[in-house]
Amino acid sequence: MNTVRFAMIGGGTGAFIGPVHRTAAAIAGNCQLVSGAFSRDAASSVETGESLGLNPSRCHSDWRKLIATESRLPENERAQFIAIVAPNNVHAPAAIAALEAGFSVLVEKPLANTFEAASAIRDAAARAGKLCGVTHPYIAYPMAMEARRLIAEGALGPIRRVAVHYVQGWLANVADGADKQAAWRLDPAQSGIAGAFGDIGTHAFNLVERLTGEQITHLCADLRVTVPGRALDDDGAALFRLSGGGSGTIVASQVCAGEANGLIIAIWGEKGALHWNEERPDRLRFARGTGPQEIWSAGVDRPYLGSVAKAATRLPAGHPEGFFEALANIYRDFASTVAGKSVSTPAFASLRAGIRAMAFVQAAVKSSAAGAWVSINDQL
Amino acid sequence: MNTVRFAMIGGGTGAFIGPVHRTAAAIAGNCQLVSGAFSRDAASSVETGESLGLNPSRCHSDWRKLIATESRLPENERAQFIAIVAPNNVHAPAAIAALEAGFSVLVEKPLANTFEAASAIRDAAARAGKLCGVTHPYIAYPMAMEARRLIAEGALGPIRRVAVHYVQGWLANVADGADKQAAWRLDPAQSGIAGAFGDIGTHAFNLVERLTGEQITHLCADLRVTVPGRALDDDGAALFRLSGGGSGTIVASQVCAGEANGLIIAIWGEKGALHWNEERPDRLRFARGTGPQEIWSAGVDRPYLGSVAKAATRLPAGHPEGFFEALANIYRDFASTVAGKSVSTPAFASLRAGIRAMAFVQAAVKSSAAGAWVSINDQL
Amino acid sequence: MNTVRFAMIGGGTGAFIGPVHRTAAAIAGNCQLVSGAFSRDAASSVETGESLGLNPSRCHSDWRKLIATESRLPENERAQFIAIVAPNNVHAPAAIAALEAGFSVLVEKPLANTFEAASAIRDAAARAGKLCGVTHPYIAYPMAMEARRLIAEGALGPIRRVAVHYVQGWLANVADGADKQAAWRLDPAQSGIAGAFGDIGTHAFNLVERLTGEQITHLCADLRVTVPGRALDDDGAALFRLSGGGSGTIVASQVCAGEANGLIIAIWGEKGALHWNEERPDRLRFARGTGPQEIWSAGVDRPYLGSVAKAATRLPAGHPEGFFEALANIYRDFASTVAGKSVSTPAFASLRAGIRAMAFVQAAVKSSAAGAWVSINDQL
Amino acid sequence: MNTVRFAMIGGGTGAFIGPVHRTAAAIAGNCQLVSGAFSRDAASSVETGESLGLNPSRCHSDWRKLIATESRLPENERAQFIAIVAPNNVHAPAAIAALEAGFSVLVEKPLANTFEAASAIRDAAARAGKLCGVTHPYIAYPMAMEARRLIAEGALGPIRRVAVHYVQGWLANVADGADKQAAWRLDPAQSGIAGAFGDIGTHAFNLVERLTGEQITHLCADLRVTVPGRALDDDGAALFRLSGGGSGTIVASQVCAGEANGLIIAIWGEKGALHWNEERPDRLRFARGTGPQEIWSAGVDRPYLGSVAKAATRLPAGHPEGFFEALANIYRDFASTVAGKSVSTPAFASLRAGIRAMAFVQAAVKSSAAGAWVSINDQL
Repeated sequence: MNTVRFAMIGGGTGAFIGPVHRTAAAIAGNCQLVSGAFSRDAASSVETGESLGLNPSRCHSDWRKLIATESRLPENERAQFIAIVAPNNVHAPAAIAALEAGFSVLVEKPLANTFEAASAIRDAAARAGKLCGVTHPYIAYPMAMEARRLIAEGALGPIRRVAVHYVQGWLANVADGADKQAAWRLDPAQSGIAGAFGDIGTHAFNLVERLTGEQITHLCADLRVTVPGRALDDDGAALFRLSGGGSGTIVASQVCAGEANGLIIAIWGEKGALHWNEERPDRLRFARGTGPQEIWSAGVDRPYLGSVAKAATRLPAGHPEGFFEALANIYRDFASTVAGKSVSTPAFASLRAGIRAMAFVQAAVKSSAAGAWVSINDQL
Repeated sequence: MNTVRFAMIGGGTGAFIGPVHRTAAAIAGNCQLVSGAFSRDAASSVETGESLGLNPSRCHSDWRKLIATESRLPENERAQFIAIVAPNNVHAPAAIAALEAGFSVLVEKPLANTFEAASAIRDAAARAGKLCGVTHPYIAYPMAMEARRLIAEGALGPIRRVAVHYVQGWLANVADGADKQAAWRLDPAQSGIAGAFGDIGTHAFNLVERLTGEQITHLCADLRVTVPGRALDDDGAALFRLSGGGSGTIVASQVCAGEANGLIIAIWGEKGALHWNEERPDRLRFARGTGPQEIWSAGVDRPYLGSVAKAATRLPAGHPEGFFEALANIYRDFASTVAGKSVSTPAFASLRAGIRAMAFVQAAVKSSAAGAWVSINDQL
Repeated sequence: MNTVRFAMIGGGTGAFIGPVHRTAAAIAGNCQLVSGAFSRDAASSVETGESLGLNPSRCHSDWRKLIATESRLPENERAQFIAIVAPNNVHAPAAIAALEAGFSVLVEKPLANTFEAASAIRDAAARAGKLCGVTHPYIAYPMAMEARRLIAEGALGPIRRVAVHYVQGWLANVADGADKQAAWRLDPAQSGIAGAFGDIGTHAFNLVERLTGEQITHLCADLRVTVPGRALDDDGAALFRLSGGGSGTIVASQVCAGEANGLIIAIWGEKGALHWNEERPDRLRFARGTGPQEIWSAGVDRPYLGSVAKAATRLPAGHPEGFFEALANIYRDFASTVAGKSVSTPAFASLRAGIRAMAFVQAAVKSSAAGAWVSINDQL
Repeated sequence: MNTVRFAMIGGGTGAFIGPVHRTAAAIAGNCQLVSGAFSRDAASSVETGESLGLNPSRCHSDWRKLIATESRLPENERAQFIAIVAPNNVHAPAAIAALEAGFSVLVEKPLANTFEAASAIRDAAARAGKLCGVTHPYIAYPMAMEARRLIAEGALGPIRRVAVHYVQGWLANVADGADKQAAWRLDPAQSGIAGAFGDIGTHAFNLVERLTGEQITHLCADLRVTVPGRALDDDGAALFRLSGGGSGTIVASQVCAGEANGLIIAIWGEKGALHWNEERPDRLRFARGTGPQEIWSAGVDRPYLGSVAKAATRLPAGHPEGFFEALANIYRDFASTVAGKSVSTPAFASLRAGIRAMAFVQAAVKSSAAGAWVSINDQL
């Protein structure tokens, strides 16, 4: 198999998203992890690497060292892209260094901790002529891809209204914030200017723009710190307007006790509606006018699915696939693109989409402070 | 049986809500329709009344005539309350006349077509010392009542966020507006200053205030006319703040193709969440922290239900009850109150709640025009 | 209104189904209760009748007295049909007497406590030339009616398999059997030769035959007494074969703790499947081949519904109707038929269907005792 | 990482289950595919192997050659177990040869095509003292494991009734049988004495015995050939009895048009019920008496889950896992056991369970032919 070699920055012991990315890459079937800077602690990084079957010489405690070492390897041995799953403030320096060293880069969202940092990544990618992608995994589910296709093909008619909720409960109480995952997300130095709106609001924003094929042009936000003592918003909502004339609402909260990973989106148009719920990702509810509601399902054997959704599925209907497989679609498409294959509708988010998500966060923070509508495109 | 006699204004041939109210009153078991001004056409009013078993002498084409005639009847024959289900602009004159003639009045929401008219009803009721209630039927479902109880008893802890959507599709296209139902709702002279926000946004507003036991203090709205040529909003959304410190979003639209009567509400607190969907009204989803989600069900045989929910139910669990039975709870409680019985948590909305809904509409229209936050209580 | 007058036998204080029938009749809109033998206790019967607005002279403690008294009234005053909601052993004597006195009769299922008694009713009806119907309310839900239509029109192709479960939990424990409802159901003298299979298995049987339009020809049953001390089955299941060549399974149990009124049916054919769940009665799931699943909804505004389903619905989609409204459809259609109107697909069960349900019970008891397949038609 | 090396027999181009097993093994994290006899065509087998990064010298066209070659490799290079995913008639000869050569064996269900062949595998494993497991993936889902725990701990009380349906539609029409998957399943020489009951009925059987911890002792089956021309049952159902005194029904069909992979199970006990649906595998519905229904969810962050379910999960609640991850649990546990680690409740099925599934098939075929109850244990 022509597998594509990759390195990983971040994702050591105690990290949530690193092992998830590695499993996804294993499912993708066209990626091979060859090196990493998993932890700032050298022993820990080697330990992680060895547990993955890596040569200790390719396990580093410093991402600069990783990039330097990989750069010196022969072309048929060195990593072909670098996946960055470290905290947000590491994204820009690591991504820029990697791009400048000639590597393609796949960055866990958000693209960076500040809009300026994100812009610097964009400029570095342009200078290097290298691919830079962002991992917003929710669009990578087959039925989200199918929703995108249906809307693009006009199944809903002009979009009138969107409602997206991304509500979690894991930061509902102070005590919940004690672990490693929470700590950096609530620290402005590592996380950026927003908390929940940066961490998960960006997923919701990206999903709206990918599914509708439109831009969110303006928003009016109301961000809050719910749990006393936090420096960043842990809850918020916004009204927004779409470039095609429609309107919407977004809710992003990490203090909604009782919720796990409650990402739901409803899109209403002149002719019908689509409803998708990440917690039941292999279904898409499609309501056409006053006709029966339709439940579309993922599965390689569903004749009605578009080619992108079908290619994002591995099993017949009724054999559920989940989060790992969605993220695997991103790795598969990113590796294919790095390998020079054309991918019509890639599952990974573009650099431009990553920049727009940063502008969304900046606009939301400004709007909430002012209690007024703010243009997102003015941030760019 | 000590039934309570009532008259009806509106609800003739072609009306939607009139026959629904009459069926609800029949289910209530303690109400008896004795007279009506069902239509401005005399023959039609008599025809409607006769089909209901009424004496033609008690069927009128003019509500003034109805009130005058009933007033002259002996106390043990005349209507004890008057239900008003005519278009919004008729509510105030009819209600005020009825109150002044000594009748209690049950008004279909919204209380009136303008805030001033609603205030005049309030003043008339105060002067007359008579009961005036408003029919917001959704809180009258047993499991909405149960949600109210759980929140009042602290099951969610302090409320942090509310999301309420009331989305319908029946006005999605111009052609849909051709019938009698749509015509008066989109005519400012009959309907008032708001379309969808007045017609169904008020239900959502009332549900939030009844369920949470809090006030919506401020909102920032974005109302729209989606279908060209309409004089009133057919779609809109708002951010809002609650008196207890929480926040929320409301969506009210009648142009969401694919939707029937999509009223859903989610209430998140520090300890858990409640989810209720009017289209599956006998269930209440209760999520406590990271515990299993619970599905609470209506039914006289469910030992965990509070007394109000249980009293609002007629059958054992698994024998669904619906919209008629919810509205029947309003008739039952209103008639009981008129008859002098104490009802601890009545299913009907109070005059004060009706006035607040009018203030909500006024604030939403102002906010949307200004693109800014507006206080609801400042409208009062 | 041309209402049809009716009397009721049974349904006094403490009865479950009597008040339910009366509410249903009120919703039907074309029925008027005029007299009753609600209880064997004279005072109690009068009390029930008075609470319903009846003249005490038309409230009796003995159904023979009721029939005699009504028979003597002028034609334009006396009851036009008699509803029998007393225990099973009363069905036959009361129904036969009523039929012989010239009344049409609507009998709560099962038609009688023994097959012989049921046959005697049939013969009496034939002699009298009067209408006799049975109340199996589940087919009377709009979406069950719609399933019937879809199958009749060939939407599933030939039926291959049916699975019907009717599982309740209210007799799960001995202590649960202490109330009035349980006592007569578990007493062979009142209830007949079967417990759960007679009480609710007959509903399931009737639903299969009504929905498929076929006969269950043979069955192989396994009935059990789960809770020690009971004289009749409280749980059981059977394999069965359909006249059209398909097969099926039926489960009927009243000792399944955790269940309320769990009646679900799945019907699979060569072209697709239908799934209906009585606890969510306004939805019908229709799966065609490998296409999207469709959720069909009740509602007067759903253009795709057949005329019978639409006529069985009172409200637009999204305003749920429930058990009372289903039973109301039975009263409406029975009263219309009594009044001489033609009803194309009546919601009530025919006398023939009631007899077949008795044969089903007899076959199930025989089959279970023998551990072998038994023909149902051989019972007739 | 201490990965466990394994070889695969079957699973070449066009096979469904082979690639699925390989992806599962990749997710497991402790398995490494090192060799295979993927196809009887040499070039095809090498091509499959190379696409998986295997050395062509370890890719064979004959499983005998694979076993012989692996046997000669040094202990630290050769496969530690062999996964057999070839058609049913290959299971026994390949498994026996592998066991005799000293390899542990993981066999795709059913264990063999005949009961005798299955017994021979059992004997070979006993002689060799090697581990032999069977892949029934459905119990390997976290929430199926959790159901098993709840029942074992008495949460339902004594089991009274079980209903399991496994209904698929992919063989609904003759034309559907044209592909490679269908051909061998409907050929008695390759598949054995049963079609649907062998292919998927065995999954249902295994699930019942694993979840309840009881044996199905007797059954009364009704198998059918629905589509003319088929040699084996494509549809069937059975009544059964459990060793603990309860009863049940099983439906297994591959001709139910409209179904994908409809495996649902309901288990009712004296105290409550559990409902699980493979198409929504991360949820378990738990109904206790007349209390609220509870929805238990998979997820490493759900504190209420037992240790086995939690260990079978990789992500926090709300990030769905699916079929691949369930099968990965089987590979993980089998590899761990091969490596000498103790696994308290392994996800794979034991040899004994595999034998019992064969006895179930034999009993079902006999019972259906005789139209009578048959003992399963008498087959053993």
